[in-house]
Amino acid sequence: MAECVVAVDLGGTSIKAGLVDRRGTLLHRRRVPTAREDGDEAVLRQLVRVVTDMIDAATERDLVPLAAGVAVLGIVDERHGRVITASNLGWRDLPVGEYLEQRIAVPVALGHDVRVGAWAEWALGAGRDVADVLFLAVGTGVSAGLVLDGRLHSGGGYAGELGHVVVAPGGRACGCGNRGCVETVASAAAIADRYAELSGESISTAEVAARAARGGRLAAQVWGEAVEALATALAAAVNLLAPEVIIVGGGLGGAGSAVLDPLRDRLSEHLTFQRRPRVVAPELGDLAGCIGAGLLAWQRLDRQVRP
Amino acid sequence: MAECVVAVDLGGTSIKAGLVDRRGTLLHRRRVPTAREDGDEAVLRQLVRVVTDMIDAATERDLVPLAAGVAVLGIVDERHGRVITASNLGWRDLPVGEYLEQRIAVPVALGHDVRVGAWAEWALGAGRDVADVLFLAVGTGVSAGLVLDGRLHSGGGYAGELGHVVVAPGGRACGCGNRGCVETVASAAAIADRYAELSGESISTAEVAARAARGGRLAAQVWGEAVEALATALAAAVNLLAPEVIIVGGGLGGAGSAVLDPLRDRLSEHLTFQRRPRVVAPELGDLAGCIGAGLLAWQRLDRQVRP
Repeated sequence: MAECVVAVDLGGTSIKAGLVDRRGTLLHRRRVPTAREDGDEAVLRQLVRVVTDMIDAATERDLVPLAAGVAVLGIVDERHGRVITASNLGWRDLPVGEYLEQRIAVPVALGHDVRVGAWAEWALGAGRDVADVLFLAVGTGVSAGLVLDGRLHSGGGYAGELGHVVVAPGGRACGCGNRGCVETVASAAAIADRYAELSGESISTAEVAARAARGGRLAAQVWGEAVEALATALAAAVNLLAPEVIIVGGGLGGAGSAVLDPLRDRLSEHLTFQRRPRVVAPELGDLAGCIGAGLLAWQRLDRQVRP
Repeated sequence: MAECVVAVDLGGTSIKAGLVDRRGTLLHRRRVPTAREDGDEAVLRQLVRVVTDMIDAATERDLVPLAAGVAVLGIVDERHGRVITASNLGWRDLPVGEYLEQRIAVPVALGHDVRVGAWAEWALGAGRDVADVLFLAVGTGVSAGLVLDGRLHSGGGYAGELGHVVVAPGGRACGCGNRGCVETVASAAAIADRYAELSGESISTAEVAARAARGGRLAAQVWGEAVEALATALAAAVNLLAPEVIIVGGGLGGAGSAVLDPLRDRLSEHLTFQRRPRVVAPELGDLAGCIGAGLLAWQRLDRQVRP
């Protein structure tokens, strides 16, 4: 019988689950709303149920489930299987790996959603031909997943906080307690807020993007400020890390050439002698986190997936 | 007979050479001036001579030299043993590894001086109890060596360019073609230049540091600007990489608490939720590059040194 692992991407809104085979292919996908309003324990119980259901689904398909990988957004200490903080779930210092392993028949690996997404894009997607990848996730927040020399860099759970690089010293207050962070200019909420501030009109970030594309002056200004903030922080990352590919994902990544083209231009303006990265769209879409959770589970079994 | 490797740190001014044993101890040190004014080929021939002399010295001491490691300042592609550019030596795209291997009886590994210095501090010095280290070298230039999860990150030779993170947009012109890079504010030359600009008096960087320590107003201002530039770029690095220890080396590192204390304070001001690194002095002094070259040679033989 063929082997597989269970893969779960636990988000604040929905849980994406699936089975991932030896080659990294995602089989039998499922998506359920996160039972967030029912408290910490409810989400953990739901997580156990989703994994157990997936184990059953594997068996029904004559697959042997060997392990489970779970990706969570927040500050995640992969090594110890602990979520340090996951503000979208209201979690604080929770030993999620241990909790699951006590209730599930297979070994469990815990990871960070953007980092495992980066790893999936490196292994199977837009970064599959290089060693050094920066995966930029721009949405509710802004963060980066770093694959350096084919290894995920975690920094004890604290790496990849590109959204908190300061690009406007003394600028807007950020939720982190600092001012002028990338997130205060380039997150989805910051873009909508800034547009409302300039125009007096509250519209969605997607609509700001659409108006900017149609040549709307204020929308183009707001969009340009966001792109410039991202380019400034990415230029620092290029100086420090020299990624070969920058993959722009998350909600804003879905805007395609409306973000890729100006970001490529602005970043290029910031660089001189540095190794110039390609700036590209993701190939795995919003399944990168789920597939990455599967790769993590395979790694837990000491098997690396990269075809 | 005991085994060793030959270690060479090739600088623009001097060549430091030695033998490094299995535990990373530096034996039989030597220092000679670099024959730079005689051209590319002369320095390469000198390098062959230094390594050959060290091999003889090992044999005289009943040591078996197994490999040689050479550290060079510039953009160094370790994997292919090539120096892409080494401006202090006037080198451009030189296959130094191959050149040496054709003339020396042992395998040769080529490395970057700051990166191997970082690695030596991680393995044997101020970073020996942690996984993630940023080694900051501040002197003629400003650059960083990154050890992440116990592995040197090279980025094809382009990683660690902290000196070219822009901290003063539109600021002074930098040698790299950009403006407002860290190096335009915090390199030794930039500090001396800025002091001369403000005071009309040309003194050395060390003298600026001394006057700042004695409470000289202009010197303290210039020193403060330099520290703030370093802290700003380090804050970006902390967000992206979450190093546990930042080791401040190079010429300015030699200034000890005059740079460490204010740098620690300024960096702390830039951080909120991030993992806070210790900011410390190096333990290997100006021998980190030479010892690191030895570790590189041991790695070439697939033997990792970390006691």
